[in-house]
Amino acid sequence: MSESNSVGIVKAQVAHFTQPLTLKSGAVLPQYHLAYETYGELNAAKTNAVLICHALSGNHHVAGRYSPEDKYPGWWDNLVGPGKPLDTNKFFVIGLNNLGGCHGSSGPSSVNPLTDRPYSATFPVVTVEDWVESQARLLDYLGIDQLAAVIGGSLGGMQALHWNIVYPERVRHAFVIASAPNLTAQNMAFNEVARQAIITDPEFFDGDYYNHGTVPRRGLRIARMLGHITYLSDDAMGEKFGRKLRHGDVKYSFDVEFEMESYLRYQGDKFAGEFDANTYLRMTRALDYFDPALDYDGNLSKALSRAKAKFVVISFTTDWRFSPARSREIVQALLDNALPVKYAEVTSAHGHDAFLMPDAHYHAIMRAYLEQIKV
Amino acid sequence: MSESNSVGIVKAQVAHFTQPLTLKSGAVLPQYHLAYETYGELNAAKTNAVLICHALSGNHHVAGRYSPEDKYPGWWDNLVGPGKPLDTNKFFVIGLNNLGGCHGSSGPSSVNPLTDRPYSATFPVVTVEDWVESQARLLDYLGIDQLAAVIGGSLGGMQALHWNIVYPERVRHAFVIASAPNLTAQNMAFNEVARQAIITDPEFFDGDYYNHGTVPRRGLRIARMLGHITYLSDDAMGEKFGRKLRHGDVKYSFDVEFEMESYLRYQGDKFAGEFDANTYLRMTRALDYFDPALDYDGNLSKALSRAKAKFVVISFTTDWRFSPARSREIVQALLDNALPVKYAEVTSAHGHDAFLMPDAHYHAIMRAYLEQIKV
Repeated sequence: MSESNSVGIVKAQVAHFTQPLTLKSGAVLPQYHLAYETYGELNAAKTNAVLICHALSGNHHVAGRYSPEDKYPGWWDNLVGPGKPLDTNKFFVIGLNNLGGCHGSSGPSSVNPLTDRPYSATFPVVTVEDWVESQARLLDYLGIDQLAAVIGGSLGGMQALHWNIVYPERVRHAFVIASAPNLTAQNMAFNEVARQAIITDPEFFDGDYYNHGTVPRRGLRIARMLGHITYLSDDAMGEKFGRKLRHGDVKYSFDVEFEMESYLRYQGDKFAGEFDANTYLRMTRALDYFDPALDYDGNLSKALSRAKAKFVVISFTTDWRFSPARSREIVQALLDNALPVKYAEVTSAHGHDAFLMPDAHYHAIMRAYLEQIKV
Repeated sequence: MSESNSVGIVKAQVAHFTQPLTLKSGAVLPQYHLAYETYGELNAAKTNAVLICHALSGNHHVAGRYSPEDKYPGWWDNLVGPGKPLDTNKFFVIGLNNLGGCHGSSGPSSVNPLTDRPYSATFPVVTVEDWVESQARLLDYLGIDQLAAVIGGSLGGMQALHWNIVYPERVRHAFVIASAPNLTAQNMAFNEVARQAIITDPEFFDGDYYNHGTVPRRGLRIARMLGHITYLSDDAMGEKFGRKLRHGDVKYSFDVEFEMESYLRYQGDKFAGEFDANTYLRMTRALDYFDPALDYDGNLSKALSRAKAKFVVISFTTDWRFSPARSREIVQALLDNALPVKYAEVTSAHGHDAFLMPDAHYHAIMRAYLEQIKV
């Protein structure tokens, strides 16, 4: 397969860290490793690095393919590549798998070198703050002092935002996309139902399923089905599936009757076969806990008072998970600090998922802004 | 306990039917029974009867208590009683448990007289249409030709609407509250996740758990937790719980951290201990299938062309499960048929649950309308 604007065949790398990392919870990781990928070339002055922070089920495989036969490219391939909005002819793009993940970085399913067994449930709860700290160490490892940009959508946007609170001098531009300054109670409620589906799965074994030869697939499947409802807008589901029947007529059964049911089951089954349940628990908890204003009397503007970057905040009209109103809270807090901020509320029918899609208007905004960044 | 405007101590009754009922699916119930309660007195002319149709988890116990010690009254006690908006000094109010239910009517958990064992999974899938038919037979049994009013909220509103399609001459007034002419894809998606949680519970045994000495509590619990998210508005959850912590500080665990989690788990546990999973499956399927326009070229106005009643349609501003827009579709279809219809869009923070609550404006509307009905 040849794609002129693809980063092409890519290979994941692993960075090992032996300096202990004290997490926000107080737990300590004596050592850990991070899987990452890079696209493009780091320039001599090391001023063209862009960090991509992933969302709940994402990872370091942002762009390109692992082999010519690879069916799907990385998860943000439509954005990242030579000539694409995030142009790898200009930028050195870094994707990583966050701590606690299940795609190559230290996490519940990876082997704890101290025991030679999977960390399993002993892998600590990680937070957005912990991720930013580990990302900063990855930059140190790569010899990068300052990012041209940090970019993230959804949970990734929270990381992009947090960079500016703890390492303001290391970020020139920050893209906070389809994100929020914290989760609403409703958001957290969906996370809780997903987690409870996993935790109460009899094959979960308190998170130690690796050592029981089981996988809590049922719970993970339910969690993902539920997730998909919240990623799509009501309108998008209506347009995509509506009340379309699967078999032309009704069977009066609990098997698949409607197209939408088939879609949800497929997505649930696929995810349950690929993703690690303990990672899912940790990713949703990181979402729940993120609330940078909390340490600043509940004042987000204060939390961002040290920020120095130029910001791009983007929301999508039908995103009911991280609604435009939540993005506007971030914009307001940035403006309160007299920071340069561009805000776009993109009209899209695709709900929260829109941030992953190649919407023309959205990508034009990204391209125009990224083009004018000097490296 | 003495409440001057309560219907007081009530007792459920059971009506047995031996005339076979052919269901919409084609399945036949050779015999069945319906649990019901009545409040007030049927007048000599039998013109003051009001039928209350229940929603997903409701039943025939609409008002009053079973004993003075009874902790909670019936589910719509705030509406029904002497001097209450639905005044039992004037009206003869009937509540019933729908077929397939688990509170006294024939359903999966009741004993099939042909086998002397629970119907279990053999109890057929039932529809709104089947319920209306069985409700009509209950009226026959009670000697009531015509209802002064049929009243229902949510799934109950669908029944109230359907009465006017199949038995227009038997309804003088119809109240369709917090309802919709059919479910959206998103509504159905939530139902599907709930059902899959139940069906994939290892203790479900294809619905035959009664004969395995098990209960699919885990699945039912997840279904109910999810349901509760959709009954409340995002705002209501925010106001009620927000991001309030349960223990004052964060524990970095998957135990209850936020108040909202405690609420959801409590609701889930309670429901899983009380409700029948097979009934839950059937109630959600009835919701999915309801689509009266389907037999009329997708035209709801045509579907309602035989209706004769006077209508009251009520929606609640923050109800995102059955949004005001869906109620307005019903209103439009009624207006297309030049039917008298009062429509109220009640400002409420309580989401879908609002229809069960004693909101002053809402109850004033109900009272004013019901007062002017001649019996």
